[in-house]
Amino acid sequence: MFCRRFSGATKTVANALCVAASMRCLHYVPRIRDIQFLMEDVFDMYPHYEKLGRTDVNKELFDALLEKASKLATHTLFPLYTSSDDEGCQLLEDGTVRTPKGFKEAYEVFKKGGWVGISFPEEYGGQGLPGSVGFTVRELMATANWPFAMYSGLSMGAANALLKWGSEEQNKAYLTKLVRGDWAGTMCLTEPQCETDLAQVETKAEPCSDGTYKLRGTKMFISAGEHDMTENIIHLVLARLPDSVSTTKDISFFLVPRNLVKPDGSLDSKKNVQCVGLESKMGIKGNATAQLSFEDSVGYLIGKPNEGMREMPTFMNAGRVRASLQGICHAELAFQNALKYARERGSQRSLSGTGCLDTPNDLLLWHPSVRQNILFAKVIAEGGRAFLMDVGRMRDIQELTKDAATRIALEHEIDFCTPIAKGCLTEWGLEASSRCLQVWGGDGYIKGNGMEQILRDARIATLYEGTTGIQSLDFIERKVLRSKTDEVARFGRKVNALVRSHFFSRGPIGKFSRRLWTFQKQWRLAITKVRMCALSDIDSVGATSEDMLMCTGYLVLGYYWLRMAIAAQKKVAAGQDPDGFYQCKLDLCQFFFQNLLPRADAHFQVVQAGSDVVKGNEAAWDLA
Amino acid sequence: MFCRRFSGATKTVANALCVAASMRCLHYVPRIRDIQFLMEDVFDMYPHYEKLGRTDVNKELFDALLEKASKLATHTLFPLYTSSDDEGCQLLEDGTVRTPKGFKEAYEVFKKGGWVGISFPEEYGGQGLPGSVGFTVRELMATANWPFAMYSGLSMGAANALLKWGSEEQNKAYLTKLVRGDWAGTMCLTEPQCETDLAQVETKAEPCSDGTYKLRGTKMFISAGEHDMTENIIHLVLARLPDSVSTTKDISFFLVPRNLVKPDGSLDSKKNVQCVGLESKMGIKGNATAQLSFEDSVGYLIGKPNEGMREMPTFMNAGRVRASLQGICHAELAFQNALKYARERGSQRSLSGTGCLDTPNDLLLWHPSVRQNILFAKVIAEGGRAFLMDVGRMRDIQELTKDAATRIALEHEIDFCTPIAKGCLTEWGLEASSRCLQVWGGDGYIKGNGMEQILRDARIATLYEGTTGIQSLDFIERKVLRSKTDEVARFGRKVNALVRSHFFSRGPIGKFSRRLWTFQKQWRLAITKVRMCALSDIDSVGATSEDMLMCTGYLVLGYYWLRMAIAAQKKVAAGQDPDGFYQCKLDLCQFFFQNLLPRADAHFQVVQAGSDVVKGNEAAWDLA
Repeated sequence: MFCRRFSGATKTVANALCVAASMRCLHYVPRIRDIQFLMEDVFDMYPHYEKLGRTDVNKELFDALLEKASKLATHTLFPLYTSSDDEGCQLLEDGTVRTPKGFKEAYEVFKKGGWVGISFPEEYGGQGLPGSVGFTVRELMATANWPFAMYSGLSMGAANALLKWGSEEQNKAYLTKLVRGDWAGTMCLTEPQCETDLAQVETKAEPCSDGTYKLRGTKMFISAGEHDMTENIIHLVLARLPDSVSTTKDISFFLVPRNLVKPDGSLDSKKNVQCVGLESKMGIKGNATAQLSFEDSVGYLIGKPNEGMREMPTFMNAGRVRASLQGICHAELAFQNALKYARERGSQRSLSGTGCLDTPNDLLLWHPSVRQNILFAKVIAEGGRAFLMDVGRMRDIQELTKDAATRIALEHEIDFCTPIAKGCLTEWGLEASSRCLQVWGGDGYIKGNGMEQILRDARIATLYEGTTGIQSLDFIERKVLRSKTDEVARFGRKVNALVRSHFFSRGPIGKFSRRLWTFQKQWRLAITKVRMCALSDIDSVGATSEDMLMCTGYLVLGYYWLRMAIAAQKKVAAGQDPDGFYQCKLDLCQFFFQNLLPRADAHFQVVQAGSDVVKGNEAAWDLA
Repeated sequence: MFCRRFSGATKTVANALCVAASMRCLHYVPRIRDIQFLMEDVFDMYPHYEKLGRTDVNKELFDALLEKASKLATHTLFPLYTSSDDEGCQLLEDGTVRTPKGFKEAYEVFKKGGWVGISFPEEYGGQGLPGSVGFTVRELMATANWPFAMYSGLSMGAANALLKWGSEEQNKAYLTKLVRGDWAGTMCLTEPQCETDLAQVETKAEPCSDGTYKLRGTKMFISAGEHDMTENIIHLVLARLPDSVSTTKDISFFLVPRNLVKPDGSLDSKKNVQCVGLESKMGIKGNATAQLSFEDSVGYLIGKPNEGMREMPTFMNAGRVRASLQGICHAELAFQNALKYARERGSQRSLSGTGCLDTPNDLLLWHPSVRQNILFAKVIAEGGRAFLMDVGRMRDIQELTKDAATRIALEHEIDFCTPIAKGCLTEWGLEASSRCLQVWGGDGYIKGNGMEQILRDARIATLYEGTTGIQSLDFIERKVLRSKTDEVARFGRKVNALVRSHFFSRGPIGKFSRRLWTFQKQWRLAITKVRMCALSDIDSVGATSEDMLMCTGYLVLGYYWLRMAIAAQKKVAAGQDPDGFYQCKLDLCQFFFQNLLPRADAHFQVVQAGSDVVKGNEAAWDLA
């Protein structure tokens, strides 16, 4: 019988009745082993760093970093996760924002550890490690406390923008402060009337005789927009010069410090930007989502006038990749806690459990359908982790290579990956959070137990940094229809290159390879169909854009699961799998192909059918 | 171009920029027209009532009821929906619970309207209308304010149980009070250690010499468990007699009034049952989820000793059908508000919208992918509404027929429908709520705007009254593997009977019929596969039980969409469709077959593949 097969963790649970109280809090253990597997067995990251001339980035250094990050995540950040949700952020009468208890102190530890600047140049006070290193260790801290991690995420985003487009003078004055974590940063795009549609930006920037600008307008939904963790906040703001016309292209990019820096380097105590409101949100309550008022606020132009939007895509793409991490973080946290609960909680008998009279009931984990929910989250967390590590690897090369052709090719490839990562990983992370809450039954619905918080926090991920709909349009329009480098074909070749050498293998690897190959063919056909449709009926392309994005996501996830399975299979075949870690990867890969990939077929069918029907007469939709 | 095709509601919106403020509140208009369509064109409900000897239930009466219910829903209940979420319920120091502002007054109106007893016998103070009438009008009030509607839902459940198993004396003392709404009722099953697994119930009932019992124990997650809207609450409680052994079968069923009724009919002011806690929940905050303490509380046995569980299934099934309504209510409310927002909110240009220079931006509704989300909710709300009306129709016959064979056959058929309705409609309602929140973008995530509340409220639906996992096990075990009447074959025949006469029709109806027939064949094969598996590997049946339930759900939904399409097609063909209402049904049916049905294929594939993989060594799942 099923429940007889269990080993390890569940065996010792003789009676689940007594543990109800103890399981009512979340736990989190960073998955160091999984990261090491990817670094060493799948992506050969140390040779990668060596090739880039970074021989200093070796296993010893990285494992030490992982240990430090792990400690910070579990000892300092994770204990604040649930409490910060209860407490939220408060806008005080004097316009300052009080972050949840413990955040300020935790931020000091975070800052002193040098985590903000981990991948920034040493000349600006950073640690100068490759981007993939910073991104990989960041997962640990972001999983422990996503709303907290957002504050530094925004700082990194602002620092990145300055690094790319700031003048030498600007960087000297602001970048070092951001990189060291002394000050924080934000990105101010959205206004009350426009959300993601930047063509509607109305904030005005009036040039002054001293070369500065006076900004007037209101920005909303500004994450980490005001807080008490740093003595200054550097806002990067999209606004219009007086001669700007109302199109997206005519927007400029400004640096607006919350407190102006006086010539002696000290800060003006009067605020240059006012926080006039905080949003009361469904989740990520530990992060202050501010409404900011610019009332003749002094700003400095970044880059050239009216070229803000030229700078935007790179900036926004970086933000989107950062947001995609949220999918993994919440899937991972939800997975760990669903598994823990299912191992401890007694429930009704499973179909095969009626004969187990030595226990008063069957653990939830003995129900195969409960396992489906848990494994879904696991397959997303681990597959997504692999995907993002590979994007990080590409980014390293793109940033450090001296070969222009390689750099440009990688730029396109990363651009291709971005809407897939943001769109699919956040959708899956949301589903994983909901399915793992489901494992908890009624307990999952109770505040303070943590599972409903994960779901509420995860719900933002498909909305900000461009909704899934916007990712889909970006994917279809820029990456499928208008890609000059035909990224679709490039990715198809990448998949083929992988499956080619395993196509005729016996056993699971061969089976997975053949399945992925077939799937890739099917995907190429769907892409062709979309390209044909675009010529005659662009609306039907829009209608199926999300389906195309999602089935592309399954292809990408399948590609990375196959890569993991190939690496794991080697270990298993070599008898190097004492605790079943590698076999588990093979099992999960099979789970992906059997249980998740079939969904892609459903998306294909929608694409094939076209979608004239959504164009019906909407006036009749809600006749009452 | 797409955005040029619009008529009606959107045409007048010249500039969407100014409406931001006005759209930040939910709206709700009962879909009377849709209900009338089902009553008159699809299910011929008036001839149905006539056949049952209820000639008094005619269009005039029903339309008047709809109007009354509609007024109550929109004027009295809906305005309290958002405010009650902010406020929640409060447990005061004296053990009483304060419901949100306005609930008590609204309940008085609800009670005076006779809505609690609408389908209960006149001899107990009810209105004696058929169950389907009560259930249909209930949707309006439940959509307007689900947490409020739950209070009376629980009363109806308790009243139903008494009607079936209460002694004459009990009914005289309690049932009339419940039916009139003077008192409220609850159902006390869950205890801290057991949730849905009733085998673990520990509450004790000690017989006293006067024929009463003394109950000791704690019940939790009791919806509407304590409140200030009625002067008494009648708890129906599962407990064990001293000689009971720890199996599900040996449980008894008790009536325990919160305040005991003195011989003169007045109430004992001392509470017989204590509310010792209220849950702080993710949603449905307007409903008090109580922890109740029974401390030698006086109770009265309902039915026979140790036969509580024999009475349970009918009782629980009724609760499950009531809960399934939530899927429709939230899908409907989410649909209406996503549509309204999308009609008013400007966004970036759609793929075909770049040439629309007469508007500053494209409305969200001009994005075909946004329409997909809205139509998903619509197809669920309307399809689910049809499904539940038909279940109500069957229930009418089952309750009123004098033919025993018909009654028993319908009992089995309704039992077959129950886990499908509860499992699938609540899962779809949850998805609809999330997809419609998605339409609102960042605004959907803000508290007070209402969309995130709908999602939080909808999240409970797949958990209580048996999780989706439990519905799936019930479906597979009792309705597929152990059904003596072979309900699977019966439903297959029902589908065949419908498609037969339209199989060779030209146009959409023929196409849908053939598709549904093929699908039904595929479903029968999957069922056969499950039955075969059950002989050798019952765990793989458990593993795919949710997939089987969901694909059965799609078959059921397809069946009802086809029925609606056939009825609508007649109207369209007869030229009786001036405003496009019926054409819209045909469009939506096509949307169902093109965009939703393909998902069922994904579920079939999972069933076909089997699921050995979930049985892997879980000890290795979270190696860190």
